[in-house]
Amino acid sequence: MTDLWYSEFHTDDVKFSIKVNRQLCSEQTPFQRIDFFESDTFGVFFTIDGLMMVTQKDEFAYHEMITHVPFAVNPDIRRVLIVGGGDGGTAREVCRYQTVEHIDLVDIDERVVRLCQKYLPQTACVLDKDPRLQMHFEDGLAFVRAAQAGSYDLILVDSTDPVGPGEGLFTTDFYTNCSRALGGNGILINQHESPFYTHYAHEMLRAHKKISDTFPIAQVYQFHMPTYPSGHWLFGFASKRFDPITDFRCEEWAALGLKTRYYNTALHRAAFALPTYVRELLEHGE
Amino acid sequence: MTDLWYSEFHTDDVKFSIKVNRQLCSEQTPFQRIDFFESDTFGVFFTIDGLMMVTQKDEFAYHEMITHVPFAVNPDIRRVLIVGGGDGGTAREVCRYQTVEHIDLVDIDERVVRLCQKYLPQTACVLDKDPRLQMHFEDGLAFVRAAQAGSYDLILVDSTDPVGPGEGLFTTDFYTNCSRALGGNGILINQHESPFYTHYAHEMLRAHKKISDTFPIAQVYQFHMPTYPSGHWLFGFASKRFDPITDFRCEEWAALGLKTRYYNTALHRAAFALPTYVRELLEHGE
Repeated sequence: MTDLWYSEFHTDDVKFSIKVNRQLCSEQTPFQRIDFFESDTFGVFFTIDGLMMVTQKDEFAYHEMITHVPFAVNPDIRRVLIVGGGDGGTAREVCRYQTVEHIDLVDIDERVVRLCQKYLPQTACVLDKDPRLQMHFEDGLAFVRAAQAGSYDLILVDSTDPVGPGEGLFTTDFYTNCSRALGGNGILINQHESPFYTHYAHEMLRAHKKISDTFPIAQVYQFHMPTYPSGHWLFGFASKRFDPITDFRCEEWAALGLKTRYYNTALHRAAFALPTYVRELLEHGE
Repeated sequence: MTDLWYSEFHTDDVKFSIKVNRQLCSEQTPFQRIDFFESDTFGVFFTIDGLMMVTQKDEFAYHEMITHVPFAVNPDIRRVLIVGGGDGGTAREVCRYQTVEHIDLVDIDERVVRLCQKYLPQTACVLDKDPRLQMHFEDGLAFVRAAQAGSYDLILVDSTDPVGPGEGLFTTDFYTNCSRALGGNGILINQHESPFYTHYAHEMLRAHKKISDTFPIAQVYQFHMPTYPSGHWLFGFASKRFDPITDFRCEEWAALGLKTRYYNTALHRAAFALPTYVRELLEHGE
């Protein structure tokens, strides 16, 4: 039995490792390095530039929490932009809403999509399948700059960390263009990093400050994501009009009868209740 | 620079590692092996039989969540029994309540206490200091069997995993004796393991079933604990009378003015909202 381990450094001195049965592929694209692995506990998982992106075992938490929270606040979402998310997991959850008319998915790297279609059909199942979904392989920042004002009801920023190709998605320029591309009822959900390790907390605060400066309503919600650093992960909820709690359409969402494994209506409210140290970080900075 | 790593296997094929500056001590007691280490990110931490117990960086989450939840439900708690908890972190939080008259701390292994007093004063600060706290170095199951009926208002089971010396604390016999030792207003908080990895979820269900069979009210709450397997950890809240949400004395707790880093009154309610898959595990089993 080959003793093969994938490891990610969560800090210089903290490491998370998964024993790998085999590496399914490894590819250097013009943008990044992509690796797919197969493991017992997590099933198939893939990394970008060595960092964990998606595992079969815990992707449901991330993809349900990025998607169902905004739809339970505004059930009339028709037009959706997904920035990043080439694995398809976010698109899969969005496609469950019959009311959605059009989805643009913009990922800079087509190879993420093609490799997920080959090795990770669990998340990629709607890509090239659902006629409402259009894929664009280009830079997310350029795409949202070129978008018509008010053309989306929801933007989901399903990005990598703010290094490499993902960096432009953590800028005021990007968030300002998102605001412009969203109608008055628009909601932006942003991959907000983690509050626990200093490096991630720093990125969380940078993103949160820029979003707070751009949107009148900017809140943060949390969930458990075992394969991400510290297991404590956040999304930002930003909007011009909707408050995620007071405008929560709990009964309407429940009436849809969507089966979920992580998200539920009690958890919707609960996810916005943050530990005191996270609240204080968001209010007062580092 | 010595390249020295502490690792814990969270499953056979998942490993969490911390780079160690130096090992502070290593001791085999009649009950278990205890190791203390010093690291950059987590500060001092200690392990029992190789498993992570307490780190300076994230112990606040565990010790605040085991303690403040029951006190915010019943502010009249006078007599407390802590089973395990030789590091002193739970006792430290309990001692913050002026209304508490007496605390028995029962840990089978005095060496845990003595080594924490030496290497981890952050958690051990009240041990041998607060006159209300009495320590007993004996078996928790035997202690609670011998306790007078109705002699405690709160029992906190701050145990290791259900292997080795901690095993007897996950039995129906133990929970039945806890119920007997608690008065009519009594609350039991139980270290409930994690829902994520199969092995831990199995132990969570075993504990929850036994507690549900013993107490009329038995609920589960969650928190983020980065150094424990999956970072997703649970406590069980059991009581003969109090519901943790409907009997929550939010304003009374807030009026105490206790400064906390993790627990707060919004999080109190929120912690009982569990992801759907955890709810379903607790309701229907594996």
